[in-house]
Amino acid sequence: MKARIHITLKDGVLDPQGKAIQHALGTLGFSGVEGVRQGKYIEIDLTETDKSNAAETVEKMCKKLLSNMVIENYSITID
Amino acid sequence: MKARIHITLKDGVLDPQGKAIQHALGTLGFSGVEGVRQGKYIEIDLTETDKSNAAETVEKMCKKLLSNMVIENYSITID
Repeated sequence: MKARIHITLKDGVLDPQGKAIQHALGTLGFSGVEGVRQGKYIEIDLTETDKSNAAETVEKMCKKLLSNMVIENYSITID
Repeated sequence: MKARIHITLKDGVLDPQGKAIQHALGTLGFSGVEGVRQGKYIEIDLTETDKSNAAETVEKMCKKLLSNMVIENYSITID
């Protein structure tokens, strides 16, 4: 199975990388950009064939390694 | 409108960050991980209210700034 994980900064946490992108878009002439937030996107190929087991494992991976629960949220899609 | 952009490495391009995650998952005791690829996820808030105009603008942003077309693919969702 394939797990797709989105890791995004929680609301209120400063995102300097997003700000840098927003500024760069402005200097390139793109107007109408109200905000930019950058996160991470991770794809994991698993040998597990049961969807709920896979989701449980990936949830543990997120909590233990992939995300920093203090400042980041994660969302998991399994297919 | 909100644009969600996924930027991923093209197939065949080495992904050391993904390899590092895969190795770290292994040392943490997670078995059954066949592969890990890490990409970027960017959310952009736009003042544009027309969906096709927004998609066109974001496509230009991807080509000009956000992705490196030599080694990366991008996909755009507008909502």
